[in-house]
Amino acid sequence: MEVENKFVTIKGYVDGPPSESDFEVAFAVRVLKADQGSNDVIVKNICVSVDPYQINRMKNYSSSQTTSSFATRLVPGEGIDAYGIGRVVASDNSEFAEGDIVVGLLGWEEYSVVRGGNWLRRINSTEFPFSYHVGILGLSGLTAYSGFYNICKPKKGEKVFVSAATGSVGHVVGQLAKLFGCYVVGCAGSKQKVDVLKDKLGFDDAFNYKDEPDLKSALKRYFPDGIDIYFDNVGGEMLEAAVANMNTFGRVAVCGVISEYIDDGRRVAPDMLDVVYKRITIQGFLASDHMNVMADFISTISDHLRNAKIHALEDISQGLESAPAAFLGLFRGHNVGKKLVRISAD
Amino acid sequence: MEVENKFVTIKGYVDGPPSESDFEVAFAVRVLKADQGSNDVIVKNICVSVDPYQINRMKNYSSSQTTSSFATRLVPGEGIDAYGIGRVVASDNSEFAEGDIVVGLLGWEEYSVVRGGNWLRRINSTEFPFSYHVGILGLSGLTAYSGFYNICKPKKGEKVFVSAATGSVGHVVGQLAKLFGCYVVGCAGSKQKVDVLKDKLGFDDAFNYKDEPDLKSALKRYFPDGIDIYFDNVGGEMLEAAVANMNTFGRVAVCGVISEYIDDGRRVAPDMLDVVYKRITIQGFLASDHMNVMADFISTISDHLRNAKIHALEDISQGLESAPAAFLGLFRGHNVGKKLVRISAD
Repeated sequence: MEVENKFVTIKGYVDGPPSESDFEVAFAVRVLKADQGSNDVIVKNICVSVDPYQINRMKNYSSSQTTSSFATRLVPGEGIDAYGIGRVVASDNSEFAEGDIVVGLLGWEEYSVVRGGNWLRRINSTEFPFSYHVGILGLSGLTAYSGFYNICKPKKGEKVFVSAATGSVGHVVGQLAKLFGCYVVGCAGSKQKVDVLKDKLGFDDAFNYKDEPDLKSALKRYFPDGIDIYFDNVGGEMLEAAVANMNTFGRVAVCGVISEYIDDGRRVAPDMLDVVYKRITIQGFLASDHMNVMADFISTISDHLRNAKIHALEDISQGLESAPAAFLGLFRGHNVGKKLVRISAD
Repeated sequence: MEVENKFVTIKGYVDGPPSESDFEVAFAVRVLKADQGSNDVIVKNICVSVDPYQINRMKNYSSSQTTSSFATRLVPGEGIDAYGIGRVVASDNSEFAEGDIVVGLLGWEEYSVVRGGNWLRRINSTEFPFSYHVGILGLSGLTAYSGFYNICKPKKGEKVFVSAATGSVGHVVGQLAKLFGCYVVGCAGSKQKVDVLKDKLGFDDAFNYKDEPDLKSALKRYFPDGIDIYFDNVGGEMLEAAVANMNTFGRVAVCGVISEYIDDGRRVAPDMLDVVYKRITIQGFLASDHMNVMADFISTISDHLRNAKIHALEDISQGLESAPAAFLGLFRGHNVGKKLVRISAD
């Protein structure tokens, strides 16, 4: 069986801030049958992730930019892979059968071929909405979980600051930190988001960074006794201000640097004198290095969801065509919670 | 017994690069008798340390600069304390007797009073020159030892880059890394220093950073397979270039930031995208947090010195009056090795 597979692609490499005109919807024939001996799995996509880091794969890195070797580049005109959930429509893989619900690296497209079934995981329970498996029970959740426990190494009572706190990772980190017994302040870019943090997610406090002309003073106000842990999703000036307000032996988990993704020119540095005198550790990490905690992560977060101790914040756009706008919205702070695109009904 | 105690002081707070006119030699009467019940120890100083970080204590920090609370400020007109070695001339402390050779926090002065004998350590052996106990067997050596083993967490065969590699800490780190089985490249600021690194200290390679208009390319040339460990004594552009050339899971031990000590305006930031994608850890540290390895450190370095497996690089100025010039020389790269001032004969 053949289908016209609709997919989103970039027209060319993206330099500077992305715009809607960088993207287009295209079609290609896809045979819904896995080649024999390939172990491939063909998935009809239900819901896929939209993440800020994807911009790094759309850039045309020069050879002097070392990041290129770590963020695999996308090819204009071809599909854009993305974490997602879908239903198996054909399989040459003994571990996956037609009708299975699976999560893994799918794409901004209607149908994805998962070569060799790599990284694919079957979801056996229908206890949670499918979208949760892409967000809070997926890579975003694992990033929050592994980052908070393995990188931040929290102690009860410590003061935790989370930036982009209503984001896909931030809102989970903040809630985990509260459950762990930390004092948690988040920042976000609108009053609505600040209200969500305080009223819905139980953060001890929250502020709109756009209302703060001086981030260092703002953090001094919210953390009169200093910050022990900064979960950094944005980099730039926020990182600088957080380091200035950190306590001795403070830890910074660097999860993302959205402030640098679309702005090559301007970098703000933390004061390295503070880093030395306060013995601060700044550590970059990726969830993919922490697959060993996957089982713990799934069981812990599932329990918290069951007991309503943690809330999944989601922001779902409808239809594959909405992916570019959803993506651009990330850089304008439009999303509240994990940004997803629903491609088809369950 | 009373003496006219000669000491070096700052005339006022130092803003920007220090100059000879910021300092003066002064005199004050000192009674060479420890008050009863004080536990004080009075020391006639033999040799004291001259360290770049001391500049941070000479600045007039505004309240917005958080570093102030970590680097205790010096008081113009008063003495400048410094790590050093001397001979006890009076003691109210049962652990120290007249004639003992001791190391600890003394000062740029002829006689120091060590309140309560705090941090003072007796040297019972005359196996090594007294100056060694201030440098390679003192805080500089401990900084190198604890930084390399505890912060860098080296593995055999890893590629190690050391900046300010003929400095008090750098030259010890490089030699320890070689003995551990790492590949070690150092950088310094003159041909003479580069020769010392290669010919005397056994570094695998070394370069003069002043000959390199593009530090990133230079490091790419010296580390075609990337850097695993960067022992950072300078910060700034060198840190940026090292991070750009680091391998995944690379570690940066930030020991000092001499490039920022006298230049408040200009900071260069590492690319945080690299920090995330390459999962780099940047960690500030102070030797004072690693006193628990002191015994191991002393015995290991002593053994290496005995077997001529490690060389102490020293640069000793004669006479207390030379302290300001010695200090200024640190920022101009004049010293080759640990900078000390000899105040009196053994």
